[in-house]
This record gives sequence, C-alpha cells and structure tokens, in this order.
Amino acid sequence: MNLARVRGTVVATRRSDKVEGAKWLLIEDCDQSGKGRGEYLVALDMVGANRGELVLVTQGSSCRWTSRTEDRPMDTLVVAIVDTIDQRGAVVYAAAP
Amino acid sequence: MNLARVRGTVVATRRSDKVEGAKWLLIEDCDQSGKGRGEYLVALDMVGANRGELVLVTQGSSCRWTSRTEDRPMDTLVVAIVDTIDQRGAVVYAAAP
Amino acid sequence: MNLARVRGTVVATRRSDKVEGAKWLLIEDCDQSGKGRGEYLVALDMVGANRGELVLVTQGSSCRWTSRTEDRPMDTLVVAIVDTIDQRGAVVYAAAP
Amino acid sequence: MNLARVRGTVVATRRSDKVEGAKWLLIEDCDQSGKGRGEYLVALDMVGANRGELVLVTQGSSCRWTSRTEDRPMDTLVVAIVDTIDQRGAVVYAAAP
Amino acid sequence: MNLARVRGTVVATRRSDKVEGAKWLLIEDCDQSGKGRGEYLVALDMVGANRGELVLVTQGSSCRWTSRTEDRPMDTLVVAIVDTIDQRGAVVYAAAP
Repeated sequence: MNLARVRGTVVATRRSDKVEGAKWLLIEDCDQSGKGRGEYLVALDMVGANRGELVLVTQGSSCRWTSRTEDRPMDTLVVAIVDTIDQRGAVVYAAAP
Repeated sequence: MNLARVRGTVVATRRSDKVEGAKWLLIEDCDQSGKGRGEYLVALDMVGANRGELVLVTQGSSCRWTSRTEDRPMDTLVVAIVDTIDQRGAVVYAAAP
Repeated sequence: MNLARVRGTVVATRRSDKVEGAKWLLIEDCDQSGKGRGEYLVALDMVGANRGELVLVTQGSSCRWTSRTEDRPMDTLVVAIVDTIDQRGAVVYAAAP
Repeated sequence: MNLARVRGTVVATRRSDKVEGAKWLLIEDCDQSGKGRGEYLVALDMVGANRGELVLVTQGSSCRWTSRTEDRPMDTLVVAIVDTIDQRGAVVYAAAP
Repeated sequence: MNLARVRGTVVATRRSDKVEGAKWLLIEDCDQSGKGRGEYLVALDMVGANRGELVLVTQGSSCRWTSRTEDRPMDTLVVAIVDTIDQRGAVVYAAAP
C-alpha cells in the first residue's frame, strides 16, 4: 500500500451505473513521514477519513475486495487512517491527537 | 482513479472479437486542477463524455467490472464526468455550466 | 489502452505449457500521433497486425479475457488496429490506405 | 517480485472492515544487493520478518492469494525472507547469520 | 511481456505457506536487443532458464494462471526463453546456439 494525505473531495454526478453512492477523495501521494509529493489521485473512501489525515491506499484490482466495492470499477481505495509510523526505531509520523 | 481530459476519438475497425461495439476516447492525463500533462491514453467511454470534459479514469482489471465491459480485454475506462474538485477548501476545478 | 507500433516478431520455442501456439509481436510504445518512443514490449497478437501498423494494446490481467487468452499467463495483448485518431478536431493519425 | 528491507512498522487502528488483524511493515525498495533506494511502501507481513531483513515483496492482485489475505484489499505483501542472492556467480547478498 | 536476462538465483528458506517449492531467478530488465538496463526483479522460473538466457517475463495477476502458480502470491514469471527477435526485418537478437 501507499501513503497519502486527504486533500479534498471530487464531485461527479454523471457516473457509470456501478459507481453510484461512492464518496471520492482527492489524495496526495506522501513519503514515509507523511510529506506530500505533489502527485494526486482520486480514491474511494472506506473509513471516513478527514482532510489532512494520512491514510493507507490500496490500488488495482484488490480494490474490489470489500463489501462496498465488490464488482465496481474502482482502482484506488482508502483502507485505513494511519496513527503512527516507526522507521528504524524512531517515530517519523504521529497523527494529531 | 486518475483525472484526464477527453481530447478526441480513436477509430479501429479491425478488432479482437470481444471488443466490438466499444467507443474509444483519446484522453490526456491531468493534474488535480484539470491541467493536461501531455500524456495520452485510449479509454472506453462508459458515460457519454464529450471533448474537453474532465473525467475519472479507472485502469487495470477493475475495468472489467461493469455491465458493458465484463469479460472484455479493457484496461482503461472513463467511469465519471467531474463536476468540481475541492483542494484544501478551495474549488480548484469546476466544469463549465 | 496504449498505442504502439508493430516493429517485428519474437520467436521462443521453449515455453511454459499454457503459452503454446501464441504469436508474439515486438511492439514500440507510441504517442497519440503514432510516433515511437523507443520503448519496446512483447505482445500477443489477437488481430493479425502487420509490421508498421499502429495498434491498441491492453496490459495486465485484462489480457486473459478473450477466447484465445483465457487462463494463460499473458499480460500484453494487441486488441485492435487503429484506422484514425482525432485530437481536438484534427486527424493526427490515419493508417495508410 | 521486488526486493525490499523492513524498516519499521505502521499502526492504523481505524481500518476498513476486511483489513483487521493485519500487521503492516514499512519497507524500503532495494536493489539486487540489498541497498535501499529511498522509496517506501507499506506491506502486510506474511512471514514474521524483522527490521533490517531483506524480503521478497509481491504487489497487485496476487496479494489476495494466500490463506490470510484472501478477499482482502491488500496490494503489497512480504512473502519471503531472503537468505542469499547470487549474481553472475558471485554472492552479492547474504543475510547476517 | 517484458524482456529480461537471467543473472542469478535468490534463495529464501523462510516463506509464506503458498510459495514453497518455487525456484526464484534474479533477472535484469532488457531492451529489444537483449541489452541489460541495470534494473533487477525476482521471478519464478517456469521453463528451466539458465544464467545469461534472454527470457519473456509476465507480471501482475496473469502470473497466477499456470498449473504451477495457480492461487500463489506470485507477480513475476519467466514464461519462455527467447530464440530470436526480429526488428524491422533485421535479427537484433539470436540466442547462442
């Protein structure tokens, strides 16, 4: 999985039949300390992530394997909100309490 | 999903048996404000997108998961037309009314 | 899908059991006007494409979804021969008649 | 598969329903001698890998094909811990005994 | 598929349950004439390829579609050994006899 920050939302009312009801987030690709890289994707929200939160993102066909995405043409999914990241014994990221 | 602009169409009459009847769009990869990057793909249109519209694109095997693409060798799909994009609280893209 | 030119053929007589009988083409990745980029892949031919023709290429697991590739370890497939490409209202590519 | 080093762990308590119970590792992409490239991913641990170990990483939908990951939205998996790598007859990597 | 050279082997005795018995090769990504690019992957051998041979490599979920890899978390597979490559009518690669 990749790390990304939630930066905003994407609204699209004219959709393919199987993607109705989805909430789409604008996310920015991040390094291991949560710093943005300036590259953006649009992801389906599975966990109620808010703007500014660091999240784990699954891409590709694995995205179809949840109760809400089964059989839908989704290729980018927010599957978890990160609390902390430990790198070589040091905490390099911690979510705001 | 990625953001892209519809730039034109691709006509191909000699096709593999399972891709007949498909309408293919020439799309240009875009950043989060809808600005083109000069990289082009060919995508199957699922939503009746017109030239100039910003669209959401699904890639890879997720593309087979709609009623029109099931069991077809498609790897790039236009699944929605974008109305607005919000980035850090500001509207960075809005479709022409 | 990506655009590519057929540049030649690849012969490989020692194969995995499920890939017997396949005809493999050497293809060069191309931009939207059919100009080569110098990057080459090997693809299974589904449409009888000839050297020099511009073709549409499907990659990844979608490649297994045709009658000839089902259940085979193929990840690159020529699925159509391009006749014309229209970009912003201008024909940027047309196959030789 | 790619080679990577285990560099730490990622904790995320707010998760999509199907990813509970998973242990996530922070891994760094490596070259064939085990040297890090500064690019990090988050992977599910299947083998009990420890910090500093060189591991084999599977990406994409293949990740769903183990007893612990079946039907889960995982796209990066640590599937083995590397003992030695031989390149052109020379051992270019050997795990610490 | 991509072209690659077999450069060596990777030994990993601590493995995920479903990858036992696999022989892993260290392979180097190559251009259309068989020249190495300095980028390495680890692939499962399906054809008994030897060091120095140019091979065809399948990546992603297609790798699960052979009798030996079905339901295994493999994402890189050597599926054939290349004999010759023809580019624009000239033989640019021929295996040593």
